[in-house]
Amino acid sequence: MTTSTQLAPVKWEDDALVLLDQTRLPVETVYLTLTTAEEVWASIRHLQVRGAPAIGMAAAYGLYLGVRGSEAATSEAFAKDLLATAEYLGTSRPTAVNLFWALDRIKARIQQEGDKATRELKAAVLDEALAIQREDAEVCRTIGEHLLTLLHDGMGILTHCNPGALATAAYGTATAPFYLAKERGWDLKVYADETRPVLQGARLTAFELQQAGIDVTLICDNMAAMVMAQGKVEAVIVGTDRVAANGDVANKIGTYGVAVLAKAHGIPFYVAAPLSSVDLETATGADIPIEERPAEEITHGLGKQVAPDNIKVYNPAFDVTPAEYITAIVTETGIFKPQEIGNSKK
Amino acid sequence: MTTSTQLAPVKWEDDALVLLDQTRLPVETVYLTLTTAEEVWASIRHLQVRGAPAIGMAAAYGLYLGVRGSEAATSEAFAKDLLATAEYLGTSRPTAVNLFWALDRIKARIQQEGDKATRELKAAVLDEALAIQREDAEVCRTIGEHLLTLLHDGMGILTHCNPGALATAAYGTATAPFYLAKERGWDLKVYADETRPVLQGARLTAFELQQAGIDVTLICDNMAAMVMAQGKVEAVIVGTDRVAANGDVANKIGTYGVAVLAKAHGIPFYVAAPLSSVDLETATGADIPIEERPAEEITHGLGKQVAPDNIKVYNPAFDVTPAEYITAIVTETGIFKPQEIGNSKK
Repeated sequence: MTTSTQLAPVKWEDDALVLLDQTRLPVETVYLTLTTAEEVWASIRHLQVRGAPAIGMAAAYGLYLGVRGSEAATSEAFAKDLLATAEYLGTSRPTAVNLFWALDRIKARIQQEGDKATRELKAAVLDEALAIQREDAEVCRTIGEHLLTLLHDGMGILTHCNPGALATAAYGTATAPFYLAKERGWDLKVYADETRPVLQGARLTAFELQQAGIDVTLICDNMAAMVMAQGKVEAVIVGTDRVAANGDVANKIGTYGVAVLAKAHGIPFYVAAPLSSVDLETATGADIPIEERPAEEITHGLGKQVAPDNIKVYNPAFDVTPAEYITAIVTETGIFKPQEIGNSKK
Repeated sequence: MTTSTQLAPVKWEDDALVLLDQTRLPVETVYLTLTTAEEVWASIRHLQVRGAPAIGMAAAYGLYLGVRGSEAATSEAFAKDLLATAEYLGTSRPTAVNLFWALDRIKARIQQEGDKATRELKAAVLDEALAIQREDAEVCRTIGEHLLTLLHDGMGILTHCNPGALATAAYGTATAPFYLAKERGWDLKVYADETRPVLQGARLTAFELQQAGIDVTLICDNMAAMVMAQGKVEAVIVGTDRVAANGDVANKIGTYGVAVLAKAHGIPFYVAAPLSSVDLETATGADIPIEERPAEEITHGLGKQVAPDNIKVYNPAFDVTPAEYITAIVTETGIFKPQEIGNSKK
């Protein structure tokens, strides 16, 4: 389902998991061919694969790689092998929710399969892993198609962080309309905020869009206001980590500032949100805990010390954009006013 | 006139120029003792001293160091030595306007002195250099005193770039009220934007305020909106490269965005502007040329490549903040509404 222009972070090819080594980006494009659960465990642990959906997919294929050599004689024995491998893979990055979601989904599938030959159960594991990847690509593509109805050829669009193909099966979330527009021959002009302190925009978004032949310009976060004032940006599209029931949106630090600037310049601000990130159990953005990250990301993060020793630092990883700044939230089920996000799951 | 808590970038001590080597900041605090014009030339060329006023002061002392050994028998011969040394020093950084301003001011003083003994003329050169430094400190201190009337003890204040003591004789411009508040025992809480791409906020502002024992917290530029929303910031103070006649202000890239965010959060936005930066010949901000700097500042600026090869980059060095976003412009002659900045020179 991916287009030829897109980088695929996770591929199943010739009975092996082929991973784009994201630790080498943006300087080198290196693909790893993994054939054992141990190799997949290490690739997740060492962040060679990152982004919630991509980690889940890698773990799913890792589970297949771990059980495909199983010599279990019964479905019970096979289920035991499966559980042991899933438990092992779960230790690679214990805070990654999507990792467990993917492993659990495969365990449930095998339970559902019931009493079948081991060969058939192995096929079911691979089938479920492929389904996870296929469905993620479908969700992203559908979000992209909805977003595309809000855009037009020739438009300038600003994005923040990496809501991109590199984190998903294909297309990304906020980047999906850029790939679809490219497929249709549109010329969008994308501005990518570098996204301090970890620079996901510079390292990942700028890279994947450049690889796809999309017109992308890298700017520092503090240049967003100027490109808006110059009329170069006609829409902002960002991803999200969590959407609250009232339409408030948590996303990478800096998103809120971009939203305020967009409003001040009369520019629509869109949030791409798979339903898996819409959390109606969370009432408002104020209920979303904001992780603070180590000072070293700011003071030493770019290869060299850039701030004095022992300087006090505030480094929140996320911020919350109140619903009032958001023009629309776009899920795979449609386009919603933030206040009506509850309808997205009906 | 400097306080004991301040770092002095340029000092005249024991018949020598003592320079804080700014290329070693913020990791090391190293002072250089310079006794020849050649050493001063090299320190300016190699950016060991930076900031327009500080460069002018260094050049003025360099001029004295170059002529103090003069064996001229007549004032004409001394003037010739002086001009030759001034011309030489001018080649250290030919684009630095303050460098020539300082050298010209000393040349004019010696012309004014007329026919005097060489010993007396040498003393006049040093006297003028000391006056340049003293007057710069007075301008900064006076701006700081005006700004302090707009602030109160306990306040949170955000600043951008390095409008600091490290660029001036003492106090800095936008940082002056922080030092004066410290002298008075106030506790201000300063947030310093790191100021990508060159990180003057992280490397210089955070450093000099920390050295002075001022409560300073370093943030990434894209965190300014969040600290404002959290109520941590009650005023913004920035410096300026040029104020136009209509009150528009050019300053380091990112200043305009901070101004828009401040307005959205109901936070006053002050600009510290020595009269030397108020340019009534420039009608509006649109008439101020904006320099674009090399892409490498963003992609490779800090010791490591952080963006893909050949990525398109937009890197404006400055932006323009329209007068409507500015609460007041503060010069050594007082506090002015931006639209009334013309009165500052009356």
